[in-house]
Amino acid sequence: MQPLQRKQSLSTDFYQLSVSNAYYEQGMADDIAVFDLFIRRNPFEGGYTAFAGLENAISYLQNLNFDSDDISMLKSNHPELSDGFLKYLLNMRFTGELYSMREGDVVFPYEPLVRVKAPIIQAQIIETALLAIVNHETLIATKASRICASAQGDPVIDFGLRRAHGTEAGLNGSRAAIIGGCVGTSDVEAEHAFGVVSKGTISHAFVMSFQDEYTAFKAYCDLNPPNMTLLVDTYDTLRSGVPNAIKVFLELKEEGRLAESYGIRLDSGDLSYLSKKARVMLDEAGLSTAAIVASNDLDEQAIAQLKYDGARIDSWGVGTRMITAWGSPALGGVYKLARLDQGGVSYDKMKLSDDPYKMTNPGYKKVLRLFNKNSGKATADLVMLDHETLDTQKPLRIYHPFFTYKTRVVEGFYTEEMLQPVFIDGELVYGHIPLHEIQAYHKKQQGRFWEEVLRLNNPDEYHVDLSDALYDIKKEFLHNHNYTGASEG
Amino acid sequence: MQPLQRKQSLSTDFYQLSVSNAYYEQGMADDIAVFDLFIRRNPFEGGYTAFAGLENAISYLQNLNFDSDDISMLKSNHPELSDGFLKYLLNMRFTGELYSMREGDVVFPYEPLVRVKAPIIQAQIIETALLAIVNHETLIATKASRICASAQGDPVIDFGLRRAHGTEAGLNGSRAAIIGGCVGTSDVEAEHAFGVVSKGTISHAFVMSFQDEYTAFKAYCDLNPPNMTLLVDTYDTLRSGVPNAIKVFLELKEEGRLAESYGIRLDSGDLSYLSKKARVMLDEAGLSTAAIVASNDLDEQAIAQLKYDGARIDSWGVGTRMITAWGSPALGGVYKLARLDQGGVSYDKMKLSDDPYKMTNPGYKKVLRLFNKNSGKATADLVMLDHETLDTQKPLRIYHPFFTYKTRVVEGFYTEEMLQPVFIDGELVYGHIPLHEIQAYHKKQQGRFWEEVLRLNNPDEYHVDLSDALYDIKKEFLHNHNYTGASEG
Repeated sequence: MQPLQRKQSLSTDFYQLSVSNAYYEQGMADDIAVFDLFIRRNPFEGGYTAFAGLENAISYLQNLNFDSDDISMLKSNHPELSDGFLKYLLNMRFTGELYSMREGDVVFPYEPLVRVKAPIIQAQIIETALLAIVNHETLIATKASRICASAQGDPVIDFGLRRAHGTEAGLNGSRAAIIGGCVGTSDVEAEHAFGVVSKGTISHAFVMSFQDEYTAFKAYCDLNPPNMTLLVDTYDTLRSGVPNAIKVFLELKEEGRLAESYGIRLDSGDLSYLSKKARVMLDEAGLSTAAIVASNDLDEQAIAQLKYDGARIDSWGVGTRMITAWGSPALGGVYKLARLDQGGVSYDKMKLSDDPYKMTNPGYKKVLRLFNKNSGKATADLVMLDHETLDTQKPLRIYHPFFTYKTRVVEGFYTEEMLQPVFIDGELVYGHIPLHEIQAYHKKQQGRFWEEVLRLNNPDEYHVDLSDALYDIKKEFLHNHNYTGASEG
Repeated sequence: MQPLQRKQSLSTDFYQLSVSNAYYEQGMADDIAVFDLFIRRNPFEGGYTAFAGLENAISYLQNLNFDSDDISMLKSNHPELSDGFLKYLLNMRFTGELYSMREGDVVFPYEPLVRVKAPIIQAQIIETALLAIVNHETLIATKASRICASAQGDPVIDFGLRRAHGTEAGLNGSRAAIIGGCVGTSDVEAEHAFGVVSKGTISHAFVMSFQDEYTAFKAYCDLNPPNMTLLVDTYDTLRSGVPNAIKVFLELKEEGRLAESYGIRLDSGDLSYLSKKARVMLDEAGLSTAAIVASNDLDEQAIAQLKYDGARIDSWGVGTRMITAWGSPALGGVYKLARLDQGGVSYDKMKLSDDPYKMTNPGYKKVLRLFNKNSGKATADLVMLDHETLDTQKPLRIYHPFFTYKTRVVEGFYTEEMLQPVFIDGELVYGHIPLHEIQAYHKKQQGRFWEEVLRLNNPDEYHVDLSDALYDIKKEFLHNHNYTGASEG
């Protein structure tokens, strides 16, 4: 049996092909569409989102290509797809423009995270994979960012691969976890793909493979590995695991072979209680430099509780709940048509809905982030039409996007443009950024927000406002459609 | 930028390599280990689990191979890995034995779903990917099985790709969804990979790309697609979408061009209310054969509620909540050492824990399923040592695995052996099974259980018992380790 042959170009919803066929047959293949990718809420009931997935999105777009086998398959399975459209598909590459937030950016609901401007068929077909990639990696980066924040600077390592939604989700999830702040991952494939050295020491099975726990610990450490972290809960943490680990460490110390990085890993039971007891046992044995690593269904809430309880844990192995984004396992990013250029005329487009949160923002837009000149902290984001300029010398009135009676005036600010050019006319203009730089960038961006926005629970809502010009287009659109918001009554 | 080159053989936790290095250096490379893959609870607080992932697991094992580039990378990043071990790794293939449940089997906690018997280094290195694959696909198959059951025979289609944990999770998730009972998927790549024809019609963006909704509907249907399901919520479901769809359908009907498969899709708002109103509108227009498809954050609980409310929905598009296994986004399958054969002697192995649910079952085991001769329904599973036989002529006393005072006697039963040979001496002995056969097999297996076990909420607990011989080994093991279960006191 051959390994499953991936064809990521085919990774799209069929309706993208059925509508593209209709665009083609309607003579709309040269229409230029503008789509915005955005989220409607921060995951995990948090106050922010950590953007990720751009690098895989770039790779997907650069390699977008339907070969003749793909075309034959579509032709035989879907006779309604016209020969003209299938020929168009065979020759299609991504020739459009794409602007995006940077990986590691701190981002918010209702602002474009990715903006695509491309011939409508291209722009539609890429929707599904673009969403799958950005939704997944942004979600895991955000979970990791929250988890690392809760660990207050302690090292956090990704142990999630075995619980990921398959090995690719594990691999890309490990990269997103590092963007969010993890110091490493257990996934060896990540070493190959991203150049991060994988981490780990011993397993329960290893301990069980020896006649007793002491022999297992000794056998492992006798090989002088650079990291001597022993898993102590296979039989009985405090009565067997920790005493056996101490015995081995003292012997190695005596022989001058104790690694600089050594300690124990707790993987079950009451981690607060066990860590405090183990700390005392290690200290009393003169092993105060031994580190205590904890794992077992950890996430930001569990770590915060353990910190609050004064658990004596030095570093954290986080698996299941980070790699599956426990609590909010889907990000819910969407990709909506905002403008269509047809025969030289631009039409702004907007999706209406009875639910105000499901309406979209029309037009070809950009995002400015406003920073206070004194504090250097971000104070609001402004979504504007791309051609608009903002006079930073004048006070700016900011409106809540849904509760427009909530308003405040911002003064003394400078701005940064958030969306960066990635593809122009189908050419990649964005360089590869090493993973550790993206991680450092995310950390730096977090530092530019007030802690109230970053807070784990019940955060303050960061303001994302629309420019007056954009708001006016929106109001006019609602007016033209006789919108009342009460269709179901 | 090249597409991310996957190296699934490297998809393992580093500790598998660090302990394998120690096994090798300790002269244990020829020891034969038996590992069981099992779950500790059914996901979604359900009564059963639908097993899946075997085909991808087979492909992974057949292609397991570390090439010289991989070895160089490991050597340079992890100097503690010995040359001897790295040479072993370079030449390593999977030469072991693997037994497994069949894809589509209805399975339960605490019984081996996959049993591996292989040289210990092989058995360890494959743990991580095997778990990632089986955890993911079993989880999605189970969610899909529950969703399809809640739809009570209505067609359910997978729309999840854009919210999956990346495109591979979407692809394999779509396969698992079909095993669980979905009639199709929107994922075009699934068409290439699994030979299922992808499904879908039109998007919001398509409707918005035309000057008005009627023109969009007409443009699509004028191409005479075999499926004329129109998305009616872009502007206003009941005041615009449904009337425009009806107008187009009546025109097509008049012209004799209305497809056999036609209708509307509701994608927001109160689906119960809207479906009832739309049904009346369609029926009054003489379009009683128009189908109503619903989508928007559906899962088994939402569908059950809509069914209970008498919603007039004919088929269901399920996305986010199925593909991300909303509610239980990780399965939690584990892989535990059960026996080690060392120098001609077999040692049963068991992990102890203060938590009885975290103890493992020792030995080389099989699983028998007991069916009542009269009803044909499954009544209990029995986990036994592989060499044991069961006299089906004698009454059998079944014990609850944790609450051993809960007991009952089973009579008049026949048995089936659940674990099937997949690899013997590294040779694949299990044939490829077409996806539609696996789907039919799952449906058939569901029919062999009482509805109390399959029930959506508060199901009856299906009994998985241990044979007396196995229970005795376990008790002896606890006795030999002076186990009291109170190490933390």
